[in-house]
Amino acid sequence: MYKIIVNGAKGKMGQAVISAVSADAELELAGQTDVGDDLGKTIKDTGAQIVVDFTHPSVRMQNVRTIINNGASAVIGTTGFTDEDLKAIDAESKKLKRGVLIAPNFGIGAVLMMQFAAQAAKYMPHVEIVEYHHDHKADAPSGTAIKTAQLINEAVGQTNPPAVESKEFLAERSQGAKLGNVRIHAVRLPGFVATQEVMLGALGQRLVLRHETINRESFMPGVILACKKILDKQGLIYGLEKLL
Amino acid sequence: MYKIIVNGAKGKMGQAVISAVSADAELELAGQTDVGDDLGKTIKDTGAQIVVDFTHPSVRMQNVRTIINNGASAVIGTTGFTDEDLKAIDAESKKLKRGVLIAPNFGIGAVLMMQFAAQAAKYMPHVEIVEYHHDHKADAPSGTAIKTAQLINEAVGQTNPPAVESKEFLAERSQGAKLGNVRIHAVRLPGFVATQEVMLGALGQRLVLRHETINRESFMPGVILACKKILDKQGLIYGLEKLL
Amino acid sequence: MYKIIVNGAKGKMGQAVISAVSADAELELAGQTDVGDDLGKTIKDTGAQIVVDFTHPSVRMQNVRTIINNGASAVIGTTGFTDEDLKAIDAESKKLKRGVLIAPNFGIGAVLMMQFAAQAAKYMPHVEIVEYHHDHKADAPSGTAIKTAQLINEAVGQTNPPAVESKEFLAERSQGAKLGNVRIHAVRLPGFVATQEVMLGALGQRLVLRHETINRESFMPGVILACKKILDKQGLIYGLEKLL
Amino acid sequence: MYKIIVNGAKGKMGQAVISAVSADAELELAGQTDVGDDLGKTIKDTGAQIVVDFTHPSVRMQNVRTIINNGASAVIGTTGFTDEDLKAIDAESKKLKRGVLIAPNFGIGAVLMMQFAAQAAKYMPHVEIVEYHHDHKADAPSGTAIKTAQLINEAVGQTNPPAVESKEFLAERSQGAKLGNVRIHAVRLPGFVATQEVMLGALGQRLVLRHETINRESFMPGVILACKKILDKQGLIYGLEKLL
Repeated sequence: MYKIIVNGAKGKMGQAVISAVSADAELELAGQTDVGDDLGKTIKDTGAQIVVDFTHPSVRMQNVRTIINNGASAVIGTTGFTDEDLKAIDAESKKLKRGVLIAPNFGIGAVLMMQFAAQAAKYMPHVEIVEYHHDHKADAPSGTAIKTAQLINEAVGQTNPPAVESKEFLAERSQGAKLGNVRIHAVRLPGFVATQEVMLGALGQRLVLRHETINRESFMPGVILACKKILDKQGLIYGLEKLL
Repeated sequence: MYKIIVNGAKGKMGQAVISAVSADAELELAGQTDVGDDLGKTIKDTGAQIVVDFTHPSVRMQNVRTIINNGASAVIGTTGFTDEDLKAIDAESKKLKRGVLIAPNFGIGAVLMMQFAAQAAKYMPHVEIVEYHHDHKADAPSGTAIKTAQLINEAVGQTNPPAVESKEFLAERSQGAKLGNVRIHAVRLPGFVATQEVMLGALGQRLVLRHETINRESFMPGVILACKKILDKQGLIYGLEKLL
Repeated sequence: MYKIIVNGAKGKMGQAVISAVSADAELELAGQTDVGDDLGKTIKDTGAQIVVDFTHPSVRMQNVRTIINNGASAVIGTTGFTDEDLKAIDAESKKLKRGVLIAPNFGIGAVLMMQFAAQAAKYMPHVEIVEYHHDHKADAPSGTAIKTAQLINEAVGQTNPPAVESKEFLAERSQGAKLGNVRIHAVRLPGFVATQEVMLGALGQRLVLRHETINRESFMPGVILACKKILDKQGLIYGLEKLL
Repeated sequence: MYKIIVNGAKGKMGQAVISAVSADAELELAGQTDVGDDLGKTIKDTGAQIVVDFTHPSVRMQNVRTIINNGASAVIGTTGFTDEDLKAIDAESKKLKRGVLIAPNFGIGAVLMMQFAAQAAKYMPHVEIVEYHHDHKADAPSGTAIKTAQLINEAVGQTNPPAVESKEFLAERSQGAKLGNVRIHAVRLPGFVATQEVMLGALGQRLVLRHETINRESFMPGVILACKKILDKQGLIYGLEKLL
């Protein structure tokens, strides 16, 4: 039995993780923490081996460090990590011999979408990403969109720039953020949980890879899998697909 | 028989208009002009009553003025007009007793989409627009997207702001341009002609109004209709729906 | 305070209605019934004025009759009613001076989609419907799809038949069911709650009206509204839009 | 220089192929044939090595046989071939030492969609296909949809049946045609050229692979490639991906 602490226990993802951990025969819910609680002390007191963290981008680094410095491994669904963050986490967790999984998305369909996007962009290098989330999401663009753009950029040496540099008539930019040459657009509306479209265009045709999450249950198989595999790892693992 | 000049005759829209005008029993193609030609002189020489203009945002005002100052009425598909532009055109064309139709979109389906968007936003005031065009389009966002946002803003006193002001992690903005509180996102890829989605969200549901143009034939019934009705008008008419 | 019984209390919609009724200051949850319970006796014992029914198509008529014959009004979300059913309910409920609301869909966005579909079909009479529901739904096509097709058929004298009668190469029919000339396609997959697309085509363009429900909360404002208005009515009211 | 005959020369695809062949430096347009012409004689007279055939499902077998029996290789875009057809063509073309490429779709994006569908179905075995074509298409479902379903059935031992066998309330079937357990729905409307969605559902999530063709130019790179590779082959090659 692995002992698990859920950090961000009052949030919707935290609640779903608590249910999923409680229902699993090989996992034990050792503690629940949230803003204001002493996570480090809870790890020590309970002897938990793993912390699942779904909290806020503003405390992303502080939480990872608290987890690994107190002897636990980390399964992280919080978003907002920069390249510098990831390098630092990899170095620190290797030194401490702890595993840290950071997954922009725990849904198998989303992982497939990201892999297909990178494959398809080799043949259809004109590509943009539009992601849609509920209007309480704290960051933009989503971690999944950033991860997708990174995978595309790694797979394709040169995604093509627009043929025409459009002149914009509104003060703010309508053409989205750029990661490399991949443009990302973020829509925030009630009536969405988490949706992403990767759009690849070519002469006279296009291919759209769309993933839609309609509730948080869809992430739980991925979270549980990560809990069961993270203790064997050291250093940063970025993306659920690395554990499949 | 109305005598028509097509300005922007070398462009794809211009070519489609030339075919459509030539095929219509009540219209006569009196001339074709493009960059470098003297439009004013051609109007005088041919005695054309109407100029259909599909050119470039950068010459939008110059062309309208050339048309009405030389005694013709104007059917304009060029985009990029600002509020100040529209006011000036209305005043100048009234003074000259000429009609100027400016239509962000000549497709009946697009006009329906815009009207439905304004109606639906009264009940579902959380709304964003994503428009998709080919990568040779010279402006962003599209005239149709701007017109849609204007209609929504006129219909709804207050479209709701996001519940959370998202923190952005990429240097450029992913959340699009704003017109009032309506956010607009512009995607530019080969494999599109002109597509727009108006997305309205509410608790647990959403309504999406999507219009897709796959070739320029779809605009021709609207352009021909406009040619046949513009001679009876004076001043600015903004939007094909005003002629339906 | 109106006294409400929820019939189909063990189902997911029933559970959502129980929560919504319990949370409303003007409504009182007087009873919960399901398969095997005596609904008629429960109405008598509790003195409930209204029964909200989300049960199974196979018992749709029996339940409506039990409700109105025991002196209550009915708010019905169960689907599967035929034209003959609706006529019988109208006649019987008028005789008993009870109101019966049958709504294929309690979501405001869905009601807007249906109205827009009927309006747009006047200008774009080539139309088909694709509806997507979870794979536990007991009937096909959905009540919302049937209602939409009826509204289109009422609004448009003639929706156009296909230009070519396609030859089919598979034993079963791929081109869907027909209601009048409107074809309806039903997809049943996990990962959907309730989604519908009305697709209207014309030369070179199309308009798609898409409504997506991602959880049952979206229906509750409509159910509560219906409970508060049904006591003033007699006979059948078909469609939530009649109460707006 | 390969000598090419285009059969179906008066059709829209035929016209596009004629333009593409004429524009290619390594190919020579040796002849154009259509209904009423003697294809066999034209092959003999011109000495053409390859016939590109985009005609009608009703003459699919007759044309293939005429081509290979007169000594040419075949690049076939016509649809409607059954399993028995394909077996017969493979046997006959091997005997004659001619190559026959039959491709349900010549677009690279469509080929990617089919491959991704088969891969994803291993992880998400609940899958249905909806295809959308213009209303002059002579068969349903499309060759691409049938090919996609075949690839999914080969990749996945068991695609899951619906959890509930839905009761249908309309006389004709709304749930589409079945190939194995994969349901296929065919929409026929103006405003489409050729679009397909493969929808894969799982608990709380779904993945949609959508390919959209907006004009026939998109197929030409695939047709030209097939012409250049087919002379090296013998027997049936089914699917453009086999030549990539």
